[in-house]
Amino acid sequence: MKYIGIDVGGTNLKAGLVDESGLILATHSMKVGQVDDPDSLAWTLVSLTQDLCRSAGVTLDQVASVGVGVPGTVEVRSGTVLYTCNLSMKNVPLRKLFHRYLATPFYLENDANCAALAEYFVGAGRGSKRFITVTLGTGIGGGIIHNGKIFHGANGMAGEVGHMSIVYGGEPCPCGRRGCWERYASANALKRMTAQAVAEHPDSILGAVVAENGGHVSGRSAFDAMRRGDRVGRAVCEQYIDYLAAGIINLVNIFQPDTLAIGGGVSNEDDAYLLQPLRRRVEKESIPCSRDKMTKIVKAELGNRAGIIGAAFLGKNKRV
Amino acid sequence: MKYIGIDVGGTNLKAGLVDESGLILATHSMKVGQVDDPDSLAWTLVSLTQDLCRSAGVTLDQVASVGVGVPGTVEVRSGTVLYTCNLSMKNVPLRKLFHRYLATPFYLENDANCAALAEYFVGAGRGSKRFITVTLGTGIGGGIIHNGKIFHGANGMAGEVGHMSIVYGGEPCPCGRRGCWERYASANALKRMTAQAVAEHPDSILGAVVAENGGHVSGRSAFDAMRRGDRVGRAVCEQYIDYLAAGIINLVNIFQPDTLAIGGGVSNEDDAYLLQPLRRRVEKESIPCSRDKMTKIVKAELGNRAGIIGAAFLGKNKRV
Repeated sequence: MKYIGIDVGGTNLKAGLVDESGLILATHSMKVGQVDDPDSLAWTLVSLTQDLCRSAGVTLDQVASVGVGVPGTVEVRSGTVLYTCNLSMKNVPLRKLFHRYLATPFYLENDANCAALAEYFVGAGRGSKRFITVTLGTGIGGGIIHNGKIFHGANGMAGEVGHMSIVYGGEPCPCGRRGCWERYASANALKRMTAQAVAEHPDSILGAVVAENGGHVSGRSAFDAMRRGDRVGRAVCEQYIDYLAAGIINLVNIFQPDTLAIGGGVSNEDDAYLLQPLRRRVEKESIPCSRDKMTKIVKAELGNRAGIIGAAFLGKNKRV
Repeated sequence: MKYIGIDVGGTNLKAGLVDESGLILATHSMKVGQVDDPDSLAWTLVSLTQDLCRSAGVTLDQVASVGVGVPGTVEVRSGTVLYTCNLSMKNVPLRKLFHRYLATPFYLENDANCAALAEYFVGAGRGSKRFITVTLGTGIGGGIIHNGKIFHGANGMAGEVGHMSIVYGGEPCPCGRRGCWERYASANALKRMTAQAVAEHPDSILGAVVAENGGHVSGRSAFDAMRRGDRVGRAVCEQYIDYLAAGIINLVNIFQPDTLAIGGGVSNEDDAYLLQPLRRRVEKESIPCSRDKMTKIVKAELGNRAGIIGAAFLGKNKRV
């Protein structure tokens, strides 16, 4: 059987036809901007499904399920989008709307949970029984896989690790709290810290790195500057890793997963500069346990594909 | 059937014979000081078991299991104490040692997990599917019950919520980290904050409350002073609840349990002064979800009995 996974992002709806092994056989995407009400969203998902089948030469009968990942909160059981910021929709009974057009089994999930599920099945979490992914992007997305199942909590909204406060009384977060982890350790936070360092030290190597990049601060800028021996770049990286470690160690002490995978663009940084110092911190500061039982901190493997593959695999467990 | 539960505390070993409903039928206790090596610990547990049976008039055949809760880290599967500070023992294969003398099924668990299990079966967590207990004592103990089972993580050491750092770069903790929650929101932390406020404001009502108590600062002192209209006492309580809320909201955002029970002496404070302000904070700051799906913050119900009952019930699921 094949599965269809659709990743609803900030700009695009990206759909993929996925086989049992997690291979994406065909993709199709559309601008989110074209979607402006619940019914047009449902209809767009239906069209993407049909277009994918057509271009890949499969029939709907060969599609086990359609899965959709959205950034925001969903009610998994009923397939309802409770809230998603990028589409500004509330309480959309998406499964019900989708089934007006197509009878294919339909699953809805938070996008960070989809990414975790994908990594669990065919990525960095293969074989893990207690698995966590932490995705460093605009915010920090978390996905917890417990014995092969997404950990939903009582209401489907568990895993919001980005809104764990690590800096008491710290920076205000749009969620209403202060000091949320994602204000300090997301890719956006790294860029903000980098931009601030450039403003304070315009003559540093970091300043030159950013200038060479057309004045554009990226998640790599500080690491590039550090590689060129820059003190300012190094200070940004060390501070960033310190914030990142603070949250990771909290998660290890709370969950003691066997494997914790870090995803998002920042995770592509050289291991020597990101994962290795992070691992040293975790080893030093997490609750003592023998080394062979310590959480393995690894890089997520699927990159941008995780969203599509994970959404597709929402239907995978259901059939078994 | 009956169960025996033994709570290994800092000063005493407290054993109880418990029936299916969680009623403690008989108790027996011994000083921990009498125990000085692994074998004498095992033998003490055996004697307590035999004494309990004798005084309650039951035979060993009627005892389904003996369960032991220790503060520290244990390997549940093999029944080994990996580390416990109060007995200064490491890597003690307690089940194996116990079974040299008695064949009764033997279970070992962290004491905070025992407390959570007891509350789940016969206390504040009855009927909960996603349950967390937070016990405010010398430190902060956490227990997570997921679908009726203790959440152990990959290595049996999950749930160390007291060592979630909430104050970045904050107070050093003996665990090696800085800013651990238990440095700010345990009963000990409350006493420390109270003592400091008394030292800074000796002429306050809080100072008088402590003086009336023979100079002894308790977890109630600041609340008592607040009730008498004291500004200094109120400030301590508000600060304490703020720290407590910071960690509780983290746990809610990560786990979204249906019920979170707070135990330990501090939790006996009047609801109007502790639970109610805490609930308002959780409601205001946790990840938005409809009110009917919000985590219920409640008081633990079993008090000191939780340790014995939970240890006893370690064998409860095993037989089914």
